[in-house]
Amino acid sequence: MELLREAKPYTKDKLKTNLIEWFHWLLREAELYDVRYPVKGAYVWRPYGMKLRRNVENLIRRIHDETGHEEVLFPVFIPYEFFSKESQHIRGFEKEVFWVSKGGEGGERLILRPTSETAIMPMVKLWIQDYKDLPLRLYQIVSVFRAETKMTHPMIRLREISMFKEAHTVHATREDAERQIREAVEIYKRIFDEMCLAYMINKRPNWDKFAGAEYTIAFDTILPDGRTLQIGTVHYLGVNFTKVFEVTYLDIDGTRKLAHTTSYGISERSIAAMLITHGDDGGTTLPPKLAPIQVVIVPIFYGEEEMPTVMKFVDEVYRMLRDVGIRIHIDDRRDKTPGWKFYYWELKGVPLRIEVGRRDIEKRQVVVTRRDTLEKYAVSLGELVDAVKQLMSVVEDNLRKRAWEDLRNRLVKVEKVEDAKNAIREGKVVEVPWSGDDECGVKLQELVGADALGIPMDTDPSIGGFDMRDLACKEKRAEFWLRLSERY
Amino acid sequence: MELLREAKPYTKDKLKTNLIEWFHWLLREAELYDVRYPVKGAYVWRPYGMKLRRNVENLIRRIHDETGHEEVLFPVFIPYEFFSKESQHIRGFEKEVFWVSKGGEGGERLILRPTSETAIMPMVKLWIQDYKDLPLRLYQIVSVFRAETKMTHPMIRLREISMFKEAHTVHATREDAERQIREAVEIYKRIFDEMCLAYMINKRPNWDKFAGAEYTIAFDTILPDGRTLQIGTVHYLGVNFTKVFEVTYLDIDGTRKLAHTTSYGISERSIAAMLITHGDDGGTTLPPKLAPIQVVIVPIFYGEEEMPTVMKFVDEVYRMLRDVGIRIHIDDRRDKTPGWKFYYWELKGVPLRIEVGRRDIEKRQVVVTRRDTLEKYAVSLGELVDAVKQLMSVVEDNLRKRAWEDLRNRLVKVEKVEDAKNAIREGKVVEVPWSGDDECGVKLQELVGADALGIPMDTDPSIGGFDMRDLACKEKRAEFWLRLSERY
Repeated sequence: MELLREAKPYTKDKLKTNLIEWFHWLLREAELYDVRYPVKGAYVWRPYGMKLRRNVENLIRRIHDETGHEEVLFPVFIPYEFFSKESQHIRGFEKEVFWVSKGGEGGERLILRPTSETAIMPMVKLWIQDYKDLPLRLYQIVSVFRAETKMTHPMIRLREISMFKEAHTVHATREDAERQIREAVEIYKRIFDEMCLAYMINKRPNWDKFAGAEYTIAFDTILPDGRTLQIGTVHYLGVNFTKVFEVTYLDIDGTRKLAHTTSYGISERSIAAMLITHGDDGGTTLPPKLAPIQVVIVPIFYGEEEMPTVMKFVDEVYRMLRDVGIRIHIDDRRDKTPGWKFYYWELKGVPLRIEVGRRDIEKRQVVVTRRDTLEKYAVSLGELVDAVKQLMSVVEDNLRKRAWEDLRNRLVKVEKVEDAKNAIREGKVVEVPWSGDDECGVKLQELVGADALGIPMDTDPSIGGFDMRDLACKEKRAEFWLRLSERY
Repeated sequence: MELLREAKPYTKDKLKTNLIEWFHWLLREAELYDVRYPVKGAYVWRPYGMKLRRNVENLIRRIHDETGHEEVLFPVFIPYEFFSKESQHIRGFEKEVFWVSKGGEGGERLILRPTSETAIMPMVKLWIQDYKDLPLRLYQIVSVFRAETKMTHPMIRLREISMFKEAHTVHATREDAERQIREAVEIYKRIFDEMCLAYMINKRPNWDKFAGAEYTIAFDTILPDGRTLQIGTVHYLGVNFTKVFEVTYLDIDGTRKLAHTTSYGISERSIAAMLITHGDDGGTTLPPKLAPIQVVIVPIFYGEEEMPTVMKFVDEVYRMLRDVGIRIHIDDRRDKTPGWKFYYWELKGVPLRIEVGRRDIEKRQVVVTRRDTLEKYAVSLGELVDAVKQLMSVVEDNLRKRAWEDLRNRLVKVEKVEDAKNAIREGKVVEVPWSGDDECGVKLQELVGADALGIPMDTDPSIGGFDMRDLACKEKRAEFWLRLSERY
């Protein structure tokens, strides 16, 4: 393997300047997703996007199955009677609920699920008899519906979230439920690691937790324009739902006890984060393990007479890689130039490109280009399989490394409001001293002009022995670092 | 492999006497599906059912992908404006449409898709430029919604059909669209063959075709009580939808032409048909290729002292089979007897059971029982892998063979109304002489007291040279055999 061209990656100027516009461009030009469907907040997954999504769904399924979760499928309809049982829950979701009615019938009181706690609880109540039935870990990947009043964005802020993976678990004790919370965090780390995403883990402040939860832990990533995107949430629900749905179990001591529950969700937002995080002004780079096409071959020949020789060699290369399970595609279109094809597949994020020209054939070699850096290598046929596997692994590592570097560079601790404002303006996520008092936290958001993400769970959140003051309430001693950012 | 017990299958008495009651029993006891969800026509897929369903979905995906279809995902919401464009379509579906509204907003005119022609057409219009973009073959597996007023039945007649595979194809010419119709029929044959289902292929009469279709070809199976169940439909839509949605393409001759479309669908009904067709009074038999668990091992030991030896051998057997990719499970529960476990796994339809007892270990053999016939074999460890593979294949063939035998035995040609009535009463599907005239056909349904399935497409439907009369309109010459049955 011989380096032919040094790293010369695409710029990220357009991406950083107007991220949403860039994202629309990517979705359209890479034929991933169509934003022209005539309903607000509802979009269309096109075949290439769907293949990518399938790979992500399968990753999510595999990791949930491996960790003792069982897939189920509940109905879309929830009777309002059930949905409204838990008072915090209904208060939080009421305004964004879609109602369903049949033509001519006004009496039905059904909603479209915005999340499935209240669909699952009445059934779980029937399934659980005694402590031996616990813990119970269920999940489903479904559409959920939220009548967003804010501006909708493709794949990011939707009225139909069509890839909502929601897990719901039931436990005998608070301890076991909280052990599950920690496991859920580990599960999401594994999923996001495979997507090469970098993330903060934040315990949301009380005023921003899931409606019906005791507390919410969220995964937030930082996009290239400095705004953060929530890509996963984990909720400890305590006995809030089991109390109103009377989900009890017979314990080993012969008494009936209320079960404790958790729920945790991720959605197609994680795919949006992946496309954007690894994006640049030429398109995006897909993590090799998830890419629908891992290697594309572009044959290069001048004149018809070169074609048979080149295509024969291309076919040999194709078979070598296909036979070891690599997802490979030959772009043999006759009405497009090689240069056009390079841009086309760079846009679509195919991790590796192989060019085959007449002179390569003489040397029994090909030219391999990495999508992330655009580095070029000459690779002899004998070492091709190993080289491709190695390069896919290198691309994956690089995507992950770059994402984490960027995230770490954007996290800053500040101790003054002005500094916080400036840092936010520069696309940073700030950590500021906070007492832990809700009112002070809300005031802090206003002072800084940013949203609180919460207290770090991925590092020690405590201020330590230093005598610092709450940035909004000077009379109070600061206990924690509170993260704030502009959010999508 | 030595036969230890002759075939002695379960009876089908309960199944035949009250099929729906039996089906409720199976779904509940085999933990496949829960009918207790508190919304009419909406049910819950439990983990074991979901695993089976996943295997069926993957079969459907594989065959569609192999035949040039691309998976997409469209929104659940369809604007009424689009839904109502095609006049036949809206007339057919209007009464069973669910409407959606946001709390407080009355102005929105959205429906939940009952089928997606009118969601897909406006996008396809944007995607197709010229003849080179055709044919276009799309499919999705989604929930669709129909406000059934008839009695709902689990997995069979639903308000939320949650596994609707709908394919939509677009073609330059009628010829190419009709070629696709024939290919769709072949695709469905492949799918149902793998599910070991037997089926009739019927061209539905005009009064029962899909709303908006030129014609509809349906797959109907015959359940053990003699009633038929529609398990798949294929529609030629002509230019009915492309006309109103203005889906045109630039042809090679430089003129703009209307495209022709088809659509074809199957749903979880096919899974219901599979469970019922292969059902008996002990439960069901799952086709081995689709079974979540293909082989279950039941260890048998008397007293604690035998356990370690038995479990060591069981583990050896388990590894042998797992290592060749067989989906295998050890039922090592201590609080259940072997006999209890036999019934449990027979209920759940696991195709093969392996018993391992102390005496088997001495002989280095196991006892293998087929679920479909309950035949028992002694199999030595050396031949186990081959024997299991062979038996799975034998079970599959037998399920398919039995299904086809039963279907063929139930099809009878009759030439008198009384004979037709009697045959229907005996659980047959009748074929009667028909002129092809719609009015006579409707009258025929009333005379016989059964529903017309249509004209056979799986055999020659013509009467031939014989001079027969239409059974309802004696003045007319009969041209075709018309199939009638009681339907679910």
